[in-house]
Formats: sequence, structure tokens, C-alpha cells
Amino acid sequence: MHLSEITHPNQLHGLSVRQLQQIAHQIRDKHLQTVAATGGHLGPGLGVVELTLGLYQTLDLDRDKVIWDVGHQAYPHKLITGRYDHFHTLRQKDGIAGYLKRGESKFDHFGAGHASTSISAALGMALARDINGEKFKVAAVIGDGALTGGMALEAINHAGHMPKTNLLVVLNDNEMSISPNVGAIPRYLNKMRLSPPMQFLTDNFEEQFKQIPFVGESLSPELARIKEGMKRLAVPKVGAVFEELGFTYMGPVDGHNLEELIATFQQAHQIPGPVLVHVATVKGKGYEIAELDKVGYHAQNPFNLTTGKAVPSNKPKPPAYSKVFAHTLVKLAEQNPKIIGITAAMATGTGLDKLQAKLPDQYIDVGIAEQHAVTIAAGLATDGIRPVVAIYSTFLQRAFDQIIHDVCIQNLPVFFCLDRAGIVGADGPTHQGMYDIAYLRCIPNMVLMAPKDEAELQRMIVTGVEHTTGPIAMRFPRGNGYGVPLMEEGWEALEIGKAEILRNGDDVLMLGYGTMVNTTLQAAEILSEHGIEATVINARFAKPVDTELIFPLAQKIGRVVTLEEGCVMGGFGSAIAEALLDADIVVPVKRIGVPDALVEHAEPNQSKAQISLTSPQIAQTVLQAFFKRELSAVG
Amino acid sequence: MHLSEITHPNQLHGLSVRQLQQIAHQIRDKHLQTVAATGGHLGPGLGVVELTLGLYQTLDLDRDKVIWDVGHQAYPHKLITGRYDHFHTLRQKDGIAGYLKRGESKFDHFGAGHASTSISAALGMALARDINGEKFKVAAVIGDGALTGGMALEAINHAGHMPKTNLLVVLNDNEMSISPNVGAIPRYLNKMRLSPPMQFLTDNFEEQFKQIPFVGESLSPELARIKEGMKRLAVPKVGAVFEELGFTYMGPVDGHNLEELIATFQQAHQIPGPVLVHVATVKGKGYEIAELDKVGYHAQNPFNLTTGKAVPSNKPKPPAYSKVFAHTLVKLAEQNPKIIGITAAMATGTGLDKLQAKLPDQYIDVGIAEQHAVTIAAGLATDGIRPVVAIYSTFLQRAFDQIIHDVCIQNLPVFFCLDRAGIVGADGPTHQGMYDIAYLRCIPNMVLMAPKDEAELQRMIVTGVEHTTGPIAMRFPRGNGYGVPLMEEGWEALEIGKAEILRNGDDVLMLGYGTMVNTTLQAAEILSEHGIEATVINARFAKPVDTELIFPLAQKIGRVVTLEEGCVMGGFGSAIAEALLDADIVVPVKRIGVPDALVEHAEPNQSKAQISLTSPQIAQTVLQAFFKRELSAVG
Repeated sequence: MHLSEITHPNQLHGLSVRQLQQIAHQIRDKHLQTVAATGGHLGPGLGVVELTLGLYQTLDLDRDKVIWDVGHQAYPHKLITGRYDHFHTLRQKDGIAGYLKRGESKFDHFGAGHASTSISAALGMALARDINGEKFKVAAVIGDGALTGGMALEAINHAGHMPKTNLLVVLNDNEMSISPNVGAIPRYLNKMRLSPPMQFLTDNFEEQFKQIPFVGESLSPELARIKEGMKRLAVPKVGAVFEELGFTYMGPVDGHNLEELIATFQQAHQIPGPVLVHVATVKGKGYEIAELDKVGYHAQNPFNLTTGKAVPSNKPKPPAYSKVFAHTLVKLAEQNPKIIGITAAMATGTGLDKLQAKLPDQYIDVGIAEQHAVTIAAGLATDGIRPVVAIYSTFLQRAFDQIIHDVCIQNLPVFFCLDRAGIVGADGPTHQGMYDIAYLRCIPNMVLMAPKDEAELQRMIVTGVEHTTGPIAMRFPRGNGYGVPLMEEGWEALEIGKAEILRNGDDVLMLGYGTMVNTTLQAAEILSEHGIEATVINARFAKPVDTELIFPLAQKIGRVVTLEEGCVMGGFGSAIAEALLDADIVVPVKRIGVPDALVEHAEPNQSKAQISLTSPQIAQTVLQAFFKRELSAVG
Repeated sequence: MHLSEITHPNQLHGLSVRQLQQIAHQIRDKHLQTVAATGGHLGPGLGVVELTLGLYQTLDLDRDKVIWDVGHQAYPHKLITGRYDHFHTLRQKDGIAGYLKRGESKFDHFGAGHASTSISAALGMALARDINGEKFKVAAVIGDGALTGGMALEAINHAGHMPKTNLLVVLNDNEMSISPNVGAIPRYLNKMRLSPPMQFLTDNFEEQFKQIPFVGESLSPELARIKEGMKRLAVPKVGAVFEELGFTYMGPVDGHNLEELIATFQQAHQIPGPVLVHVATVKGKGYEIAELDKVGYHAQNPFNLTTGKAVPSNKPKPPAYSKVFAHTLVKLAEQNPKIIGITAAMATGTGLDKLQAKLPDQYIDVGIAEQHAVTIAAGLATDGIRPVVAIYSTFLQRAFDQIIHDVCIQNLPVFFCLDRAGIVGADGPTHQGMYDIAYLRCIPNMVLMAPKDEAELQRMIVTGVEHTTGPIAMRFPRGNGYGVPLMEEGWEALEIGKAEILRNGDDVLMLGYGTMVNTTLQAAEILSEHGIEATVINARFAKPVDTELIFPLAQKIGRVVTLEEGCVMGGFGSAIAEALLDADIVVPVKRIGVPDALVEHAEPNQSKAQISLTSPQIAQTVLQAFFKRELSAVG
């Protein structure tokens, strides 16, 4: 049987280990070919090919449910659940999503994109099953990196307390999150990986074994064999932490040995209560280049399969915002040893790996632990340190209470740098950085800013570092800047809450925030071609807003447009509308931004067009709203 | 020496154990007298009197820092850090705060009110100390309940990975959070409490001991004695989980034996790297009534010290919202076995203890683990269960990403019930439920509602349970209802997004949300006395807003006022302003609510007066804003 013939994972049931190995080979081949062409996550999926096949051969996927943490390790799952034919559309508009998605397949039982959610979701499903009187198996597959997220540990604490709720947790231990893991738990897992399987030592096992249905004192030869196999696999001393926390621990199992995997999963399914199977895998398995550079091949842009090198783009691009951010921060940190960069397991994504390389003592990676990252920053800030917390907009959602309770209520000077704010493209709804303006703006003491380009980003980094009277947050987008000139030093801080006028015109006042400033200028030019002259303001700050500059202009011009790459509900446009209303300036305000709906994965430009954020669309919106006119064809 | 003479904790240094016991007695006395009079947290503080005295005798509090988790266990700390004289003002306006507060004392190094933050904050301070080249000790005191919060576990994972960072974690194990603890970790701790101290078994200890400065192969008699003492106290087999996670474990120690505590802390300070001292305490220690009812005396309203009974209020009060909520939910759950109530360690506070008592199979307490609570609900919702997540507004902040990522993106029908929304009174800034409208409104698929009184609360519970097409959230306040008639059954669901007119008038349109509806009606009456007639609307929904009802009225009347007990930045008023602007209805909108500042602890009515939310103040605001007039004296 060829992989392309598998449209339902139950088709794996009859296959021999040898046949499964062939399927594994075909999965790797398709996985590599596709990601080389489309870009996407590479290492995580390649590492779990046998884990997926072995687990699925022991399950009835018409009933049983597998919950994949993060979802970036689920490409093999996708390839054997009816998505082989469309897999070439991976991460493209209207194509296969890069993560799991309930709407995409009945086998995607729980969407994910953020880490550490799978055990909670799976436990919920297991409880629902028992409430509904149903019988099926629920398994969560979670990486060792994701296991350090507090939510996963909360779930372990709860599940370990529920001996009557059958739940399988498969720990995909590849010794990595995106970067090498941080923390005592991964170190502990690593110790286990290095230990040889040991004889089962506790009496507990005998007791548990007897509780398995149909197993009593006298065993059939078959059951006796299983029992001995379980003894060999279950290693209580090695897995003591999990055993103490109420789980039956099995492993470590060679994650690329199908026979061992299948035997272990079959045995695990017989054990009541929460069971953890510890599977040792190799990230990037089967593609040597990825095995050797696990960080570099976690996810990739399109690349050449033979060389592993990225497909060169046609023309040189301006530097990415992340790169400018990291470069500037390193420069400032060199001059100020009190600056400490903090990342939550995103060293490469945020660019803080540059800080780590240059100034390791001014760099902290806390692992996948955004809550802890923010409160450790608050602790640092109490003693004169300048913590710079670099977390993507979407992941900072995880530390919302810490921002309120530990930073803002105490008015501590923590500098939040939110990369990937706005539209993120191929990663889709779980990763869109849409909500940060709204969720941060409502907190007292917070200052919010966003640069119009990569040069202003540099000035805002200085602004943030020098703002020592309270918390401040800066958002900037995924992707590349505009190629504007950058400075190597001597950046000047901006005055908090001060905007700048970029263009004058009497017909409409357009306030752009962050990435939308440039688009606003373009839209203003199109409007000018239609005889409408706009004043364009680079707002710079969403909190506080520059009322001194904006109020007289709004009163004079009488038509206001706000533009942001974030949710319009409660965002920058609301801030302007609120300020005007509070000042009794009653003028029409057209808020342009991301509507109150999910933005699916696509090229960023496709997404922007879809939600009417291109400059011609904006010009059109303004013409219609204020001048009841249509846009002429744009040359 | 009498407690009243202690204004600095270093005054404890010279005292004998016997003298400390006398101070302990005086602390308990003052603690009991005060809380009996003012209300406040009782059991937590009584349990840590000796822990506090023992720890502080081994520290130099001019340099060393102690971070108390939650802060409700810090009353003894307050009494020996210069606040004895003012302690009778506890939890009263301008008085001593019920939690820790940096502004209140130089000994309050990190404010808290929410659980599980102390290890992160302490680790941040320890790292800052090392960066700054300073030398002092940092200790976090955390309860066993708070230890189940994911953030605390993230911190353990990180700290256990930092062998060069000296940090003391004191685990105050009283076997309780507010209610008995949930989970495998507390069960594990309990197992340890029951074990006798055992001989130290690992070789690891010898290695660690040698790393202590000035300790080498050959020991002085003094050091040999310390080493033997440490062996006796450090119990690796019992503390294996913490040892495996990189901590030196010591304990369990009798938390009411000052000699043992002092000896242990002194030894703990000698050990490099992260150290965990496991202290077994009795919640409510020294007040028998509280020892016997640990849940009931966690926190108390004013009570009679002799009988332990609450001081009866002068007149009977209408039922509390929480009580009506719980009663109604139990009624509905009796009829529908698919309804499952979920709490995160707040069974009594949310009233879900009633559900637990009546229908234990329809009740889940996940422990202090809000993130897990929300995602387990999402998991339940995938399989036809109706999860009702009862979490206070302020604590739901902890699960913000789970609400977005696991519930709303997947549009799963989870019903969030946010108690303590709005002003909470004596608990102060960390507990104010100010942000929920803003932080939930920006998320696609979410429905937001708030009842005008306890009868409408009942209807909204039915509405939430019957809303099976997606997520829905209801906010309601701390405290009592209005005494309106309640129904025992047969409640009718409200139509989603539909408001109701309560009063007609042509001069101003007033839109009240939730608790502000009643105040709005009162303000309208005052306005009427001034010849201004208001139309008053009970908005019911902040998302979606009832544009069909509101738009024609706003256009006709031309003056709009919104009223909410929540932050005005991005809240209900913004929702109305946004909707009107989007519909090109350009009218003045006066948004009345909680300004962009912290609201300190006080009586709720005092807080409301402070931020101009009483009905005369509102009438005044409206008169000034729209009619340029002053309020006459109100009779």
C-alpha cells in the first residue's frame, strides 16, 4: 500500500511493521518535498513519524481521539487522515493549515498553535466521555518543551489526581522546544533518556496490574508475557516524578522503533487511570541536515532539499524587524549592563539569540513559560534592572494577568517588545497578533507604542529602555522593514505620547498606527488623485494619545480616520474615538483595522486584501464614508 | 518586649525562643481581635506566626527580602514590620491593605493578591541581586495550594535549573488552598507530611555540601554538626520530586516549633542554589474554632471571637448574587446532567460548593489552575457537555489566552460566569474586576452580558446554558442583590443582543450595563427633578449591542450616556461609541465608568463615590456635560 491510498488512519491496522516502515519512508518523503516547496515546520513532524504510525495502529480512530500539542508536529497525522492529496497547499490561502484545525478534518479533535494545551483538552474530552457513558481512548501527544508550560503542569497535577479517568499522555521527548530546552524538568527527562530501562521496583505495579479488567491472580501465558513486558518498560525509579504525581510511567521508548512503540502503546491502553509514555525521538529524523541543525530546521522557508539551503529570493530584502530589534538591543545592552533580555523559548524567533551570543549574562530564556517570564521581569525591575521582555503578541496573551497584577498595578518599569503584532500570514488564527492593543490599553499605567518603520523601531527601543517610570509596550510586525536608513548608534528617545505630522491636507485627518502609517500615506496619495487632501499623522502612541496635536486638527478638519493592524474592537481607533468624545469633539470617526472575525492563514498581502487593509481599499473606504464617491480605477 | 514595641523585624534577633513564643501569642491575639472587628483573612495568618518569626530571626531584614505569596498570610509580617499601631484600620479606606503592597512598607517587596507569583518574583530579585553584585538573601513563602498554579511550577522548573542562584522557597503546607487542595502535588506533599524524617540517602548531598563556601573535605566540629543536622532534616526520598527538579529539599518541619524552624532556616541559608523548606502548618492555628473549620475561617466578615459567629447585620439583606447564581445553577443542573460546573479552587466563593454537595458528579474543582480550567472546559464542550466556568473577573485574567486560543478561535460553547466583576471593596486593586469587558470584548465569537439584578441573573444563567453556538460570558458583582422577586423555576432565556427600555424621555439617552442599570434609573430621577427627562436602557449585552433599539433613539435624542462598573478604556461605553460611529451616527457620547487608574481598597460605596459613580454624581456629570448646569442640592 502506498501512502497516497491511505485516506483513513484505520487502514494502518492490518499493516506489518515492515509495511509501516515503508509508509514512514513515504511520509518523510512527502513531508520533506512539501515543506521544501511551501515552507513550514520540518523537524517536529519528521521526529514523530513512527510515533504517529505506532500510536494509530493501536487505536480505532473512528472513536478514539488523539490531541496533538501545538500542532506543528502533526504533519504525519495530516498525511494519513485524508489530506495527502491536498498537502501541497500547506500553509497557503484556502489550503491545508500549518497547525491543527477542527474545521479541516474530523480527526483534528482540538486545534492548537500555542504550546501546552493538549493535556487539559484531552482530560476534558476524557471527562466528557465518562459523563456521557461513552467508551473510547483519549491520548495527548505533548513535547518535552511544551511540558514546561505552566498549563501543562496544572493539567498533570489534575489528571494525576483522577485515577478513574483513563488518559494517555505521550511525551514526545526530542530534547528541544524550538531551541534547546530550559529548566529542571527537561534536564530530568534527559537524565531518564540516558538511563537504561530498569527493573520495576514498586509493589504498586502488582496492584495496578490486578485492576486491569480480566487480570487476576492467575495469569494466562499471554498476560504473563504482557506483564513482564510492562515491567521491562515501566521504570519507576527513572520516572519517579511522574509516578509520584499519580501517573503510571512507561519508558523511555525508542521513538523510531515501531515494534517497541506498538508494544508499549498496546500495553499502555490496558492500564487504568493516567498513563505517561515517554518516547525519545530525534527532531528532524531521517533528514540528516535537519538532525544536525535542530534549531535551524524547526521551521523553514522554502529550501533546496539537497543542500538544505533556503531558496534565494529574487531581490534582496530590507532587514526584518526582528533583526533590527535584536541588533539595536545588543548595541544598547553593550553600553548598559542593566539591560536584560528575556525570552520564553523563542530565542531565534525574537532575535534574542544575538544577545545570548554576544552578552550571555544579559540574556534569560525561561522556557515555554510566559507567565513566569513577565513576573521574573517584574522582580528584576524592583532592583534597578531594565528587563526587556521579548514575546510575540499572540504569546503575551498567556501573561495577561501577570502584566496587570505584577507589573502594572505596581507600576514597575518593564519593557514589553511584542514581535509578530498584526497579521502573521501562514501561521493563521492561533498566531495572529490582533488583540494586544485592546488587551494592554485597558490596563492603568501602561504606555503603548508602535513604530512606523524599522528606523523608528530603533528609536522606540531607546524610548522603552529609558522609560523608567513605569511599564511600556512596543508592538512591531512580522517580516521586513522598508529599507529606510538605519543608525548604528546615537538614537534619540521619543517623547512619550507625542505624534508627528507627515502630510498636510484640509479634507480628512488620517491617523496611522505602526505598520499602517506607510499604507496611510499611500492611501492619502490615491485620495489626492481624487482631489481629496489628507493630513496624515504617525500616531506613534496608542496610549497616551497625543491629544494636543490631534484635537485641534480633528476640530478643524472634521473628518477622522484611524488605521491599525489590530482588532478594531477596543483598539487604537477606539482610543482616538474615546479621546475625542471625552473632549466633546463630536466628529465622524472611521475606524479601519481588523474586523471582529478570525483571519485565516494566507500570505499577509492576501489577508490584508481580504480585510480591506490595502491602500486602494482604504482610499475607497474613505471616499465612500466621507465623500459618497467611488474610487476611479487606480493606475 | 511586647509586640507593640517591635517596629523593625530585626528587633527579633536577640530574642529567645521563649520570648518569640510570647510574641507569637501577642500576634495571634492582635490578629484575632482585629479581624474579628474588621473582617479579613484569618486562617492563613494564624498558621504562619511561628514560620514568620522563625524565618525573620534568621534574616537581616534591612537587606534580605521575603516575598509572600498571595499576601493574605502576611498579617503577622505586617504586625512586626511597623504596622502594629495602624493595624486596626485593616482593609478600611486609607488603612492597612489586606494584601501586600509595595507602597505601604519597605518590607513589602512585592505586592500580591493573586496566588502563585512569589517564586517568579523572588527569582527575579535573586537574579537582579547577582547582576548588581549585591549580597542578600531572597525567600519566597508559598502555600501548597498556590504551588499547583502553573506559574509557580514554571518558576520551580526555571529555578531548579539555576544552581548558582541562591534562592529559598518556603513551602507553607497547610493542606488547604481556600478549600481542601486538588491534585497530585498536594497529595504528594501530604504523603510527605505523614512520613517520618528519614536518613539522607543520596551521594548528591555530600557533593552539594562540599560546594558550600569554606566547606571542604575536612570539617571543623561546628560544620560537622551542621552537616549532621542537615542530614537529619533533608529527606531526599520523601522530597524526591523537588530533588529531581534541582532543589535541595528540607523537611517536613513542624511549622509551630520555633526551635526546629530556626535551626532549619539557619541551615537552609548555608546551602547554595535553590532550596525548598517544607513547613507543615495548621491553618487557623491557635484559634480552635478556625482550626476545626478551615474553610469557613479562611476569611471572615466581622465575628464574635468567643462564639466564632458572624456579627449579625442590623437588617436582613437580600441574597448575594453568588448565592442566587449557585442556587439557580444547581436547579438547572438537576434537570440537565450535561451541565458541569468548574471552579479553580473557589468552591465557596463562587457558590459551587452547593453544586458539589448536591450533584458531585457535575462538579469539577481543578485547584488554583485557571488556565487548565478553561481548556478543560473547551475539551468538555467538544463532546456535548455544557461547561459552566465560574471564575472571578480578576482571576479569569489568568486564562486570557485559553479563552482566545482554545475557546473562541474554535467557537466552542463554554459559559463563563464572572463573579466579583466591578468594584470589590476591601480586597483592593489586585482583586478589582475592572478589565473583563475590555479584555473579552475584543475576542471574535464572544458574547458578553450582565444582569441588572438578581432576577435577571437567573434568566442570564439560562441564556448562557442554552447558548450552544459559541462562547458566552456573564459578569455580575460581589455583594447582595436588590431583593427583587426570584423564581424557583421556569426562567426564560433572553434573546442574545437584545436590550430593554426601562424609562422614556426625550432629553438624554442613558445606557446602563449590569450593576449600573439601577444607578442609572436613580440618576434619571434626579435629572427629572431638574427638568431633564432621560430614556433609560438596560443594555443587557455589551457584545453584540442592540443596535436596532439604540440607533434610532440615539439619533432622535442626540445625547448618549453609557454607564458601566468597569474600565472605560475599551469597555461597554466604547462598544456603544464604536457602534454609533460605525453607523455614521455622530452624536456626543459621555462614557461613565471606572477611570484609567487603580481603585484602592475601601468600602464599595466609598470607592464608587471616589470615582463619581453614585447616582447624584452621575446626574451631575450629565447635567454638566450636556446642559452646562450644576446639580441642585439633593434632598
